[in-house]
Amino acid sequence: MRYDVIVVGGSPAALAFSRTFRELYPERKLLVIRRTEKQPIPCAVPYIVGRLKGVDNNIFSDDIYSQMAIDLVVDEVIEIDRKRKIVRTRSGREFGYNKLVIATGTSPTRIPIEGIDLKNVVFVFKEYKALKEVYKVLSRAERLVIVGAGFVGLEFADDLADGREIHIVEILNEALPLSFDKEFGALARRELEMKGVRFHLQKSIRKIVGSDKVEKVILSDGTELEADAVLIAVGVKPNSELAVKAGLRVDELGHIIVDDYMRTNDPDILAIGDVAQKKDFLFGKPMKAYFSTLAITEGRIAAMNIYSPGKIKAPTRILPVFATKIGRIALAAAGLIERVANRMGIEVIPVTVEVINRHPAKLPNAEKILFKALFEKETMRIIGAQIAGPETVVEIINSVAITIELGLTAYQILTLQYATQPLLTPSPSNNPLRRAAYEAIMLKRKES
Amino acid sequence: MRYDVIVVGGSPAALAFSRTFRELYPERKLLVIRRTEKQPIPCAVPYIVGRLKGVDNNIFSDDIYSQMAIDLVVDEVIEIDRKRKIVRTRSGREFGYNKLVIATGTSPTRIPIEGIDLKNVVFVFKEYKALKEVYKVLSRAERLVIVGAGFVGLEFADDLADGREIHIVEILNEALPLSFDKEFGALARRELEMKGVRFHLQKSIRKIVGSDKVEKVILSDGTELEADAVLIAVGVKPNSELAVKAGLRVDELGHIIVDDYMRTNDPDILAIGDVAQKKDFLFGKPMKAYFSTLAITEGRIAAMNIYSPGKIKAPTRILPVFATKIGRIALAAAGLIERVANRMGIEVIPVTVEVINRHPAKLPNAEKILFKALFEKETMRIIGAQIAGPETVVEIINSVAITIELGLTAYQILTLQYATQPLLTPSPSNNPLRRAAYEAIMLKRKES
Repeated sequence: MRYDVIVVGGSPAALAFSRTFRELYPERKLLVIRRTEKQPIPCAVPYIVGRLKGVDNNIFSDDIYSQMAIDLVVDEVIEIDRKRKIVRTRSGREFGYNKLVIATGTSPTRIPIEGIDLKNVVFVFKEYKALKEVYKVLSRAERLVIVGAGFVGLEFADDLADGREIHIVEILNEALPLSFDKEFGALARRELEMKGVRFHLQKSIRKIVGSDKVEKVILSDGTELEADAVLIAVGVKPNSELAVKAGLRVDELGHIIVDDYMRTNDPDILAIGDVAQKKDFLFGKPMKAYFSTLAITEGRIAAMNIYSPGKIKAPTRILPVFATKIGRIALAAAGLIERVANRMGIEVIPVTVEVINRHPAKLPNAEKILFKALFEKETMRIIGAQIAGPETVVEIINSVAITIELGLTAYQILTLQYATQPLLTPSPSNNPLRRAAYEAIMLKRKES
Repeated sequence: MRYDVIVVGGSPAALAFSRTFRELYPERKLLVIRRTEKQPIPCAVPYIVGRLKGVDNNIFSDDIYSQMAIDLVVDEVIEIDRKRKIVRTRSGREFGYNKLVIATGTSPTRIPIEGIDLKNVVFVFKEYKALKEVYKVLSRAERLVIVGAGFVGLEFADDLADGREIHIVEILNEALPLSFDKEFGALARRELEMKGVRFHLQKSIRKIVGSDKVEKVILSDGTELEADAVLIAVGVKPNSELAVKAGLRVDELGHIIVDDYMRTNDPDILAIGDVAQKKDFLFGKPMKAYFSTLAITEGRIAAMNIYSPGKIKAPTRILPVFATKIGRIALAAAGLIERVANRMGIEVIPVTVEVINRHPAKLPNAEKILFKALFEKETMRIIGAQIAGPETVVEIINSVAITIELGLTAYQILTLQYATQPLLTPSPSNNPLRRAAYEAIMLKRKES
C-alpha cells in the first residue's frame, strides 16, 4: 500500500498536520501510524486523577480520522527504508510513502536510581496504557513522593493534594527552577504548602526502598519518606532513534535537524513537534522546548509547505512561553529569566511591578498581579517576563511574548495601545507591560 | 507667580503628565489647576451606585500633590494670554507659565430634547459635584430611562439593574452599535435583558414630560415610558473653547491639533488626553477616541519630550481598543468592525471562531469564547477583532491589538508563539487569534 503521506505519531503535531493537509489536499492518500491505542491530550495529563477522574476523559477524539478520510493504524514504526520509501512496523507490516512526517515526540528520561524498577514507581509517559497505570497507582496512593518541582510535578501535586500526603523532591533551590526566578517559584511553592504539600529542596533521591512495591524513599541528606507511590517528573528526551537509524541528522540534544519548512536532510522526510530541533530565540543554539503550541504550529506549517515551500516559515527561533495554575494562582513566563540572563552575561534592567486587577481597587474580586520584565540594558529590548496572579495573567504574557518575539524596545512598548476596564483589568497607568516599560525608561533616563 | 509648567485639568492625562514630569525634573515648579473639587476616576463612573456605593469611593487620591511637591489649585482657567504667558481663572487669579499643558477633557453633548431641563434628567459629567447629583438621582430612581446603548449606558444599566425598572433607548439597531458588529452587541443586550432591562432599539426620544421632575418619556414611535429619572449617555465633545479663544488650532471635530510630541501650534503649549486630536490608524482622519489608556500614554510622552523632543513619539494614529463587562460576559474589540469596513469599501476576510476556555472541555469552569477577526483581503493584514466571553478576553484583545497596530498579516500571526494551559485557556489549536489567522489563510488558499 502506498500513501502520498505517512505520519508517524498521533500527537498534537500529527493531528494539526493531518487536518491541514487533508483540508488542502482532499484527494491525497494520508495515513497516520501511532503506537498508542488512544491518544491522550498531553497538556492535561497532570489532571487525570483529581479533576478529570480518568484517563478516558483526557483523550483526543478519533472522529477526525473517519470524518476527514485519514487512515489510522495503531502500531509502532520500527524502521524507515529511505531507498524504497517504505516504513516497517513492529507487527511486520510495510507501508509505502511519498512524503514521510515524523512526529514521534518524547519519552521520560530514565534516571539511574536504586529501586526505580519497584512497583508503584511511575513515569509521566503520555501513552494510553502507561497513563492507565499512572492513574491506577496515583489514585490509590495515600503517601506520594513526586520527584521534580517543574510544571508537571507541581500540576500533579496541585491536582492530588486533597487528603493525600505529598512530598516533592527537587534538586535545585526552588519550585519551577528552570522557568521562573525564585520569587515566582516561591509563590507556587507556598500555594502547595498551604494545601499540605511538603517540599524537599536541594535534595535528590538516594534510593527507593521496598520489597516488591515502594515502601520508602531515602533522600540525599538521609531523610526517609514513607511512601506507597513515587512519581518521576524530571524530564524527557526526544524519540529520535528511528530517525537516527534511518540516517537522518540530529543535533547534540537528539532532536532531528529541520529547515524552515520542517524538512530533514532527506527532502521527502519531515519532522515536527517535540522530536524536531528547536533553537533559542537569542542565540540560535539547540534547546529543549516541548510545547504543544509550537507542535501545532509546526504541524500546520509543514502541511502548508509540503509540496511547494512558500512564504510561511516555521518559528525555528524559539521563545519559551509557558503557563500553569498552582493552587489559586496562575503563573506564566516568556523568554529569559533573570538568573539565566545573569549566567549568560547579558546586562538587563529588571523591573518588577505589583498591581491590582481592578480599578479602583475597592471593586469586588480585586486580586494582586506580580509582573517582572527584563529589558536588555544596551538596546532596551524586552527579552523576558514573568507574571503571577488571577487567570488573566496567561493572556497578559501572551501579549508580552509577541513584543519579545518581535524584538520591541521599551520605547515602542510604551506607546502600544491597549484596553482597560474597571471590572476586568488594572488601571490604565498600571497595565503591567506598559508600566514596566515606563519604569525601565525612567530608570535609564535618570541614569544617563 | 510663575511656574515652569502649568497643567490645566486634573484627569488621568494630567496626572500621568505630572507624575512623569516631576520624576524627571524634581526641581521645576509645577502647578495643576483643575475645576473639580475632587477628581473622579472616569472609567469607573458607571459603577458609583451599585458596586462602589458612593462617588467618594471613586476618587483619585490627591496625595500625589503633596508627596511629589506639585501645587494644586481648584479653579477654572478661563483665559490663556499667550503673549504674557499667563492663565487667568474664574476667581480672577493669574498664574504665569513657561510651558502650558491643556488637559481639559470632554463634556457631555447637550441634546435638543423637549423636557431635558426637568429635574432628575442627568448627564454623565465626570466632575465631582455633577456626579454627586447623578448618584443622588440614580440611587433613588425606581424607574429609569437610559438614553444611549453605548458602553456607558450599558455599564450603568448593568450596575443598576437590581430591583429597578430600566429602559434603554437607542437610535441604532443594536446595543454597542459603534464598537461591535451586531452579533456581539446582541450578546450584551441579552445579558441585560436577562436582568430585566428592556431595550427600545431604533427609537429616539420625542420628549421628556413632567411638571417639575421627570414623569414620563415619550419615544419617537409614541411609546410612553413612566420614569422618575433619565440618564443621558449619548456622547461627549472636547472642552476646547479655551484653546480656540487663545488662537490654538483645532480640527473639524473640535480637538486641539497636536504634533507627535503633543505640542499645539504654539510650541510652549501642549494638549493631551481627550481634548487633543486623534487620527484613525488606517487613514489618518480626525476621529473621536476617548480612552484613558491613550490619555495616560500621551501624558507620559508629553512629559518625556517637553524640553527636548526625543525618540518616543505619541501614537497619533489611533487604534480603538475597548473592553466592557455586561452581565456575566466581558466584551472587547480592537480596530475596525465589519460593518464599518464594508461601509468604507475595504474588502475583508471575516473569520469567526467559537472555542472553549479549557482543554479538555470537561474541565471545571469551561466557558465559551466568541472571537471574530477581520483580515484585509488584499494584504492579509489583520485590521480588526471582537471577542466575548470570560474575563480573559480583554487580555486576548490586548494581544490582538498589538498585531493590528504593528500591521501583522495572518501569515505572521500564525507563527507567533504563545502559551496555553488546560485550566486557563483554550487548547493550542484553538487559540482564538492563531486559529482565526489559520482559517483566513486556508480560505485564501482554497480560493486561489
